[in-house]
Amino acid sequence: MKVDLLNELRKQNPIVFNISNFVTVQDVANGINALGASPIMSEEVGEAEEMVGLASAVCLNLGAFTQTQVEQIRTVGRLANQQKRPLVVDPVAVGAVHYRKRVTTGLLADFHPDVIRGNAGEIAALADVDWQAKGIDAGEGSGDLVTIAQACAKKQGCVVILSGPTDIITDGTRTTKVLNGTPLFQVHVGSGDMLSSIVAAFCAIEEDSFEAAQTACLVFAAIGQLVVKQSPDVGAGSFIVKLLDALQRTTVADIEAIATYE
Amino acid sequence: MKVDLLNELRKQNPIVFNISNFVTVQDVANGINALGASPIMSEEVGEAEEMVGLASAVCLNLGAFTQTQVEQIRTVGRLANQQKRPLVVDPVAVGAVHYRKRVTTGLLADFHPDVIRGNAGEIAALADVDWQAKGIDAGEGSGDLVTIAQACAKKQGCVVILSGPTDIITDGTRTTKVLNGTPLFQVHVGSGDMLSSIVAAFCAIEEDSFEAAQTACLVFAAIGQLVVKQSPDVGAGSFIVKLLDALQRTTVADIEAIATYE
Amino acid sequence: MKVDLLNELRKQNPIVFNISNFVTVQDVANGINALGASPIMSEEVGEAEEMVGLASAVCLNLGAFTQTQVEQIRTVGRLANQQKRPLVVDPVAVGAVHYRKRVTTGLLADFHPDVIRGNAGEIAALADVDWQAKGIDAGEGSGDLVTIAQACAKKQGCVVILSGPTDIITDGTRTTKVLNGTPLFQVHVGSGDMLSSIVAAFCAIEEDSFEAAQTACLVFAAIGQLVVKQSPDVGAGSFIVKLLDALQRTTVADIEAIATYE
Repeated sequence: MKVDLLNELRKQNPIVFNISNFVTVQDVANGINALGASPIMSEEVGEAEEMVGLASAVCLNLGAFTQTQVEQIRTVGRLANQQKRPLVVDPVAVGAVHYRKRVTTGLLADFHPDVIRGNAGEIAALADVDWQAKGIDAGEGSGDLVTIAQACAKKQGCVVILSGPTDIITDGTRTTKVLNGTPLFQVHVGSGDMLSSIVAAFCAIEEDSFEAAQTACLVFAAIGQLVVKQSPDVGAGSFIVKLLDALQRTTVADIEAIATYE
Repeated sequence: MKVDLLNELRKQNPIVFNISNFVTVQDVANGINALGASPIMSEEVGEAEEMVGLASAVCLNLGAFTQTQVEQIRTVGRLANQQKRPLVVDPVAVGAVHYRKRVTTGLLADFHPDVIRGNAGEIAALADVDWQAKGIDAGEGSGDLVTIAQACAKKQGCVVILSGPTDIITDGTRTTKVLNGTPLFQVHVGSGDMLSSIVAAFCAIEEDSFEAAQTACLVFAAIGQLVVKQSPDVGAGSFIVKLLDALQRTTVADIEAIATYE
Repeated sequence: MKVDLLNELRKQNPIVFNISNFVTVQDVANGINALGASPIMSEEVGEAEEMVGLASAVCLNLGAFTQTQVEQIRTVGRLANQQKRPLVVDPVAVGAVHYRKRVTTGLLADFHPDVIRGNAGEIAALADVDWQAKGIDAGEGSGDLVTIAQACAKKQGCVVILSGPTDIITDGTRTTKVLNGTPLFQVHVGSGDMLSSIVAAFCAIEEDSFEAAQTACLVFAAIGQLVVKQSPDVGAGSFIVKLLDALQRTTVADIEAIATYE
């Protein structure tokens, strides 16, 4: 686990192009900016080629789901592949809404992500495993999460992050569990969206997508845990404020001191 | 007043489908999530039927007002009626902008809300009462607010919430005034939008829309008042942070201790 | 420098119509609301004429860049000129993305702004001066910033604000440098967007656009600096919270006490 990639990220300040969920776009922009990357956002297909060219990595959040946006996402995904930019996909609510699974399956036939990040319900859906997702939440199911994540990684041919109380990162062969974190990530809408863009930021500076993905998960989970450790009475509103402060300030040494993974 | 509906809401964690104002969507999602409901948002008409099916209540914020969005709102409103999901409508700025009143009147001919929530200017407009609204703000007028709210409830055939320093909740026959609150709700854009979605969350777990509406107003106003009581120097920015914390933590007993209504 | 325009702004509570960047719209609305103006937002061209009519000033943020939005912006800009409303333009990322420069140049042929506010990369692009912009960030270049701002003001025939660690305000003849500020403005995405709308709010109450622009810059920069002075350990997340509080509360006297400009 290369935690010091965080120093490299802050040094390089890579541009990350995000097609963002309209619900959480401001937090995502602020999150990756606070961590040390430079966010750009766009909803216009006419500038897609330039935006991908400017960026060192691309994150496609599939919570942006109007038909116009889907076509923009398709174009940006293909351009990211053509221009060899690392590509992260966040398949929001694909486990709960059949329409989303259908459109997402179509998109994944048109471009190839380096990393897919979702909750258990979303990853199970993309692995064609039965699961009871609940709206934007993970929902419940009986399968083993590591097996589901590995099945998804093999089916989709990319690194998969199944995030939750424990984050599971796998490329189908290598598998890491990040045990850091805090339940407060669940009470703030958009924590997952922020993580997806942070994964893209790490992919911008580390060629091995598995390494980038596991480091991003550890950094984000550990920083969240440190926030709660330092401010035990933090709640749904103050958590995101303190998380942004901590994304800016937490050092590699702070993270290494509490890092727990296997 | 059934304040303990709040416990039921937290237990059931109902999914609330929101067509949200693009200005305030993130706060609204975080607000109802912090309180204990599960928000879903969508701007795509192609997934409207599934989204309504997943949800236990629907909130249509008419601040989302492009022609495409209006057609999506029309579809979602009709689906909510067909699928018998409680439906809350928030007619943003309908008192200040004739175009909005015209379109909103058209929408209200196509589906029937269970609750309409607006400020004095908005409710007066939907009751066809003269009033000087000011942009998104309530503005000024000489009429009696209770009379205006009751007239709107009778004209629209639904529960009406006229919110302001005192919230007036009426179905045309029963009328409650909630006297709790804080002026800070006015300095944070989107407090009203958040209340509308919270009303929908209560409608998801209580069949009597009047009961759900008055409880939602009391819970929200009392929690806002408690924030200021606990942090008297709170301002425009810190209020929303502490409000989200308090939406998550405030108990039924905390609310009952300061509840003031008639 | 007429700092007491801030009192006038709070007294008049002018309506400012904003075409906003979807990334930062909520912060912008809250920022100008906290300061004492009344924000309205709309994405629908059908209500553009009424919205401009309601407003005392208009701010067009060119981060909203879908083709539909560009046509709405064109209409709103022309209406602002026709209805003689002060008009502020924020040309987001026009220095980094050729597509944006092309479209923006087209827009500026169709309506005439009273003030353009951008970072060094954006203002250099509109002055046709060479500069290496970086995404949404200012980037680097060798030219003298005052010369670039003045060239842009002459070329565009309006007041120009080149904002950064030092804000430069010029109408081509008169030039002011505002030396107040804090580096934390750069770690919060949307600080510039907020400033642009605040400039519009000052233009709503002061006919001399240069005077309005320099006062807005001083007020915003000084309030940011005061936040950091009062809370030296503020970070990327807590800064915006405290900034909103301070926008609401800071007095003319507080600002005059630290105002530094030349």
